Amino acid sequence: MIGRLNHVAIAVPDLDEGIRLYRDVLGAHVSEPQDEPDHGVRVVFVELPNTKIELLYPLGENSPIRSFLEKNTAGGIHHVCYEVEDILAARDRLIAQGARILGTGEPKNGAHGKPVLFLHPKDFNGTLVELEQI
Amino acid sequence: MIGRLNHVAIAVPDLDEGIRLYRDVLGAHVSEPQDEPDHGVRVVFVELPNTKIELLYPLGENSPIRSFLEKNTAGGIHHVCYEVEDILAARDRLIAQGARILGTGEPKNGAHGKPVLFLHPKDFNGTLVELEQI
Repeated sequence: MIGRLNHVAIAVPDLDEGIRLYRDVLGAHVSEPQDEPDHGVRVVFVELPNTKIELLYPLGENSPIRSFLEKNTAGGIHHVCYEVEDILAARDRLIAQGARILGTGEPKNGAHGKPVLFLHPKDFNGTLVELEQI
Repeated sequence: MIGRLNHVAIAVPDLDEGIRLYRDVLGAHVSEPQDEPDHGVRVVFVELPNTKIELLYPLGENSPIRSFLEKNTAGGIHHVCYEVEDILAARDRLIAQGARILGTGEPKNGAHGKPVLFLHPKDFNGTLVELEQI
């Protein structure tokens, strides 16, 4: 069912420092920051040959990563995102297997403009998993 | 400097359950478990089209992931591994930029039989980063 690893998301407490680390220290290609107010994040894409790292910085008071950064003050890996071909079929298969979908269970428009769902970390080895329909 | 994302490593408290989740629930191709006594882990490779997820389970009393699982009892993302062409050149560049290498600073033979280094999570947004020479 799952296909490519679309991205790994890393929450950072200081976006300029995150950019410096990936661009200047690790020598990767890093995009300009872009604001995604609907998702409560400012994001920078680290473009690797086979996938992306997304550096997430909170935007607005209700950012979903604010509480994560309160617990992980240095930052940390926030989630992994796997691609699926049909997100509704994927959701129904997951629910039939007993996995919990976060929120309403209906896909939302994700940060890349495509339908996404998040799965409960307690059902997936303590890992927040995003599924994105490609 | 960094190239492909070689893998994302997820520490799991129950390897059979981790296999079930990735093989049966998420529908990915999952390898047979293999013991890596030199690295203190039993590992399963989840083979995605563009990279791998490695499920790590502690092997032996001195496993480096045992304390991680004591803190993260449900499991969690343990590290990301980026490929580099020349690990000594990468190390020297990192040290010159002020980053700390874990251990002696000399590359060790990693789980795939290639030279690896680990970078201090406090220097990289709270993320444990492995570099592997390809």
